[in-house]
Amino acid sequence: MTLSVPADVISRLKVVLGEGGWSQDPDRLAPKLVEWRDRWHGTTPFLALPKSTSEAAAVVGICAEAGVPIVPQGGNTGLVGGQIPLGEILLSTERLRAIRDIDTFDDVLVAEAGVTLEAVHEAALANGRRFPLDLASQGTATIGGVVSTNAGGTAVLRYGNTRDLVLGLEAVLPNGEIWNGLKRLRKDNTGYDLKQLLIGAEGTLGVVTAAALKLFPVLVSRATAIAAVETPEAALKLLVRAKDEAGGAVEAFELMGRRGLEFVLKNIPGQRDPLAEVHPWYVLVEIASGEPGAAESALERLLTTAAEEGLIRDAVIAQSAAQAKALWSLRENQSAGQKPEGATWKHDVSVPVSRVAEFLKVTTERMEALVPGARVTAFGHMGDGNIHYDVIRPEGGDDARHSAMRAEGSRIVHDIVASMGGSISAEHGLGSMKTEEARRYKSPVEVAALTAIRQSLDPGRIMNPRVHF
Amino acid sequence: MTLSVPADVISRLKVVLGEGGWSQDPDRLAPKLVEWRDRWHGTTPFLALPKSTSEAAAVVGICAEAGVPIVPQGGNTGLVGGQIPLGEILLSTERLRAIRDIDTFDDVLVAEAGVTLEAVHEAALANGRRFPLDLASQGTATIGGVVSTNAGGTAVLRYGNTRDLVLGLEAVLPNGEIWNGLKRLRKDNTGYDLKQLLIGAEGTLGVVTAAALKLFPVLVSRATAIAAVETPEAALKLLVRAKDEAGGAVEAFELMGRRGLEFVLKNIPGQRDPLAEVHPWYVLVEIASGEPGAAESALERLLTTAAEEGLIRDAVIAQSAAQAKALWSLRENQSAGQKPEGATWKHDVSVPVSRVAEFLKVTTERMEALVPGARVTAFGHMGDGNIHYDVIRPEGGDDARHSAMRAEGSRIVHDIVASMGGSISAEHGLGSMKTEEARRYKSPVEVAALTAIRQSLDPGRIMNPRVHF
Repeated sequence: MTLSVPADVISRLKVVLGEGGWSQDPDRLAPKLVEWRDRWHGTTPFLALPKSTSEAAAVVGICAEAGVPIVPQGGNTGLVGGQIPLGEILLSTERLRAIRDIDTFDDVLVAEAGVTLEAVHEAALANGRRFPLDLASQGTATIGGVVSTNAGGTAVLRYGNTRDLVLGLEAVLPNGEIWNGLKRLRKDNTGYDLKQLLIGAEGTLGVVTAAALKLFPVLVSRATAIAAVETPEAALKLLVRAKDEAGGAVEAFELMGRRGLEFVLKNIPGQRDPLAEVHPWYVLVEIASGEPGAAESALERLLTTAAEEGLIRDAVIAQSAAQAKALWSLRENQSAGQKPEGATWKHDVSVPVSRVAEFLKVTTERMEALVPGARVTAFGHMGDGNIHYDVIRPEGGDDARHSAMRAEGSRIVHDIVASMGGSISAEHGLGSMKTEEARRYKSPVEVAALTAIRQSLDPGRIMNPRVHF
Repeated sequence: MTLSVPADVISRLKVVLGEGGWSQDPDRLAPKLVEWRDRWHGTTPFLALPKSTSEAAAVVGICAEAGVPIVPQGGNTGLVGGQIPLGEILLSTERLRAIRDIDTFDDVLVAEAGVTLEAVHEAALANGRRFPLDLASQGTATIGGVVSTNAGGTAVLRYGNTRDLVLGLEAVLPNGEIWNGLKRLRKDNTGYDLKQLLIGAEGTLGVVTAAALKLFPVLVSRATAIAAVETPEAALKLLVRAKDEAGGAVEAFELMGRRGLEFVLKNIPGQRDPLAEVHPWYVLVEIASGEPGAAESALERLLTTAAEEGLIRDAVIAQSAAQAKALWSLRENQSAGQKPEGATWKHDVSVPVSRVAEFLKVTTERMEALVPGARVTAFGHMGDGNIHYDVIRPEGGDDARHSAMRAEGSRIVHDIVASMGGSISAEHGLGSMKTEEARRYKSPVEVAALTAIRQSLDPGRIMNPRVHF
């Protein structure tokens, strides 16, 4: 599908963007029209590449006037298709890549939308600070994208989601006006907090062009372990114990099942089993502190008492940064490790932390009943109740057949999640993939409110029109 | 002013609320119509006292249908008049006082709007947890109020404002429908985060009826000191040093001037000068950690190196909880201590942390030029850039004359704040006092967006109509 865009709109866009500021070249467009899992394939009549906020505003203004829809795109690492146009104008933030400011008194870094998350990490570290949003895709994901999807990652337990890490935003609103909300204040109560709407809006309320991000101290003490537990219930108890013992210093608490670990050992080169024996479940726990030695001793205390009480079966503490990296590698390769195993139904869901164990039990029974021999691998951010719940086809089974049952299986997973007060999209957003599914689980009261808010800011529904309500 | 409310509306309200659920008795109404600084005096034809969310919804529904405006009120501790009706129906949350749930796996406490902040503190502590929102008014302030004003307090540096402490909300929207957003998830990306709009909306987008609040570990190690510094610039350097040294464990960093301290020593019984000599500025710093002894040693290191480098002139570390309380008392009595000194222009402002010292210098020069002999006392949450900037009349001066110049003086203060990218209401909100003043400093783009959002949810503008844009 290519929506018809009036020729004069294209002409006007070319004028405001100037040479190098747009493209209609299929080779230039191609990488922006396919998403990295290769599940979404898009089309666009025109790629806009504004090099400044005012150029981005001009593009949106022209489109708003003409009623031509726009899809904004950052690093194109989204997993739910929200950044892939189906005929809309594509507005890429790739040329908005200045780090405008970094201030270690304010502990703030102001980055334009097209700056990669990794570049922000590096700039922060070069100034003796840390930006604690850690994602697998950070080398490619951009600030505009992580803000627009309220990205999560592995350190949410301590630092929160992107929402918690933003002090201010600059954005082009759907009417083409520039909103300068690039404040760097820790306290400001002067009306509704407009940036909170733009965070997680997936481009439906405008184009985020820059963000003022919170910086944190680099912590001198950091300790990492993998502990084996009998059940997810035991992992849950260990989590509570860890939070008690470390007093807010737990940075990560990641759950993995034996099956997922075996896929990593089998399919990813250079990995090794962290413990001598085989265990049903594993937890990667990381503690960090500004006090020299404090993380190490908290972790040691935690594991010692947990072992004494029979809460854990075994554990290994990393003795070096390299060992910590090797432990993390087992977690980070969970997704890649299962890939060679065939067709998979993937779910990025969350439930209240207290219900993670129950969720795993109930859902896995249902999945194994639906597809005898299905191989469930569940892993993820147990500390946040966020589980990546994947159902792989039976060993030697048929990919197409499994894929054909995806909708049926996912519906069951999502129904269970909803019945537990959970979320069917914990950290990836709705995009074009989950918008209709989400409508099923939201109350009509909420959908009506969200739709009214959108309508009030984008009456022509030109911003990412197929995404959200 | 009493707006005319149709008699049949009053009758219908009485029916849905039942006996004990409403009042028109002047004696019952009186304490709810005066605010605690005695600056705002209100009137109302009817006090609604719903005892459940569904009763609150019925009240709003009846008023919405009839176009009758409502002012919601919690503990009536607001400082900007937002909770005082001028002829509107008054909806008090005082009977919504159940703590519905507390869960130490989820680290969540669900409280109804009328529960006091202190009751939440106590319930959390009784379950081995902490709710880290600390306000002077916590014995009276209620959860509905702190959510609706996005209250701040003394621990924002570490834990954020109320916004950062809320996992879910339940509210009656302006159309009288109940929105159940009482989730307890740490990650949920399924559309705009509606609760973020209600937080800080000061009742203009509906009535918050319950909140799911984040709980935190009780920290075993806590250390408190007062350090004397030559200038606010030195205090700023000490802040950066403290954050480096304690790695995110700084809970409070409060600035006070000598004048404010002297007013406390003079006007509040039982206080003593914390240090042997007189110094121009003081900082109260508190560090807390889950690691036994860690806060004490971080504070010791901080003060030792700061003293060696000449950053501080002197310091005292509390040797007991009682001593810590005595140090805090000097800070907490800053407002009460200056009260007997006469008429005061008060400002609750914030600027970027890096500009606090400059703000104090520039503004004080202007105030002393405007009113020769004016006694500026500035104190507050330097760690957040939030200063309570008070200008007291000259010694022996005339209260009325000083009060008459308030608008002129405050305009200068607010202009300076705005020129530094600050906020004219850091933590108290806009209420009826600051709404017009805020309009002066917001961009037309932002005011238009906020007005459109409000209009979309409350087309009849029945919710707290005189407050916000």
